[in-house]
Amino acid sequence: MDFVRPELIPDPTVRRLSLYLRQLEQLQKNAQLTVNSKQLGGSLGLTDAQVRKDLAYFGTFGHPGVGYNVLELISRIKRILGTDKAWNVVLVGVGYLGKALLSYAGFAAKGMQLVAAFDSDPEKVGQVLSGHEVLPMTHIAEIINRHECRLAILTVPADVAQDVATDLVHAGIRGILNFSPTSLTVPPTVAVQAVDVALQLEQLTFQVSLNSMTRSGVRHP
Amino acid sequence: MDFVRPELIPDPTVRRLSLYLRQLEQLQKNAQLTVNSKQLGGSLGLTDAQVRKDLAYFGTFGHPGVGYNVLELISRIKRILGTDKAWNVVLVGVGYLGKALLSYAGFAAKGMQLVAAFDSDPEKVGQVLSGHEVLPMTHIAEIINRHECRLAILTVPADVAQDVATDLVHAGIRGILNFSPTSLTVPPTVAVQAVDVALQLEQLTFQVSLNSMTRSGVRHP
Repeated sequence: MDFVRPELIPDPTVRRLSLYLRQLEQLQKNAQLTVNSKQLGGSLGLTDAQVRKDLAYFGTFGHPGVGYNVLELISRIKRILGTDKAWNVVLVGVGYLGKALLSYAGFAAKGMQLVAAFDSDPEKVGQVLSGHEVLPMTHIAEIINRHECRLAILTVPADVAQDVATDLVHAGIRGILNFSPTSLTVPPTVAVQAVDVALQLEQLTFQVSLNSMTRSGVRHP
Repeated sequence: MDFVRPELIPDPTVRRLSLYLRQLEQLQKNAQLTVNSKQLGGSLGLTDAQVRKDLAYFGTFGHPGVGYNVLELISRIKRILGTDKAWNVVLVGVGYLGKALLSYAGFAAKGMQLVAAFDSDPEKVGQVLSGHEVLPMTHIAEIINRHECRLAILTVPADVAQDVATDLVHAGIRGILNFSPTSLTVPPTVAVQAVDVALQLEQLTFQVSLNSMTRSGVRHP
């Protein structure tokens, strides 16, 4: 079977895999055994053609006349997304947001084991937050190495984010979930996902402005 | 001048407008007066053709042989995104994440005025956090009406998110930044931006898995 080269798979397709997975897990909870592409797409506002096209990047799925086996499709999407295995994760920067994330149950649900939290503030080092002791920054490389961590969550202030990211990459981190409001320069072998609240706010004000103009008949922009 | 119908503008284009804006604001800080599409795109890993195509959705920009005037382009992109004016915002759900967001400086920078925070927990009501008093849920409609709020930030648990969202929409909210890990059903006149950490984690593990397989020569999936 010949697959598309993975690096050619469009980002929106990979994003939709996450949405399909969430939908499928809901169906699993409801004890539904099979689903067709029309049902799967419909609940997400997508056509059945889009669903089939997205999945076709990754091989052959489903059974003609029956649809997809829910459990099988969950298992295959998890394998594609890499969440079928456990990942050890470190968190750097224990401010308000870091604290919120330390108590976030969603990580464990995605196979993430948060092994340590770090901060440069001596007042915070030694505190235990949601079961995690805050360690000094000087321990980062040792902990990453010992636990073979490949993922890091970055919640430090913008002005130190690049330096911390560089240290993380040197220590062996290969993926960074970046909450710091700045872009990071990393080698091409390292992936960065930016959680950018300001950007999402702008997307929201764009949509709201658009809707109000469409309703009132005003031309945009 | 004839513009593309706004609802036909692709989401990735609108996302890139935010990235251009951030880049332009950096240039402004550095006192750079003009920029061409090649420079603007280059710093973001985009081609000059992509930059010109994105901007062309919104009219004519730039001056042949000179490029774009930085200040003018900042001003026009802000107008397009709707961040050239002030927005009154409410936040609902004062858990760890709500507290982190109440202290987030990025809202003010995007013209957001956080007018109130709400929680259903009587223990939290009356607390003052980052200068905002936490109000009981029963005050939501009155406050939204009084301050003409159109945007809401939703940081409540998933199991109550839909009910709260419905109340917000009834009270006049037209855009929701949704941090609750569940999808919301709202009328088509209401915009929702989901900040979905679990989804972004999956995108990250996908990329990291991909990179490690590409390096080791293993076929994907």
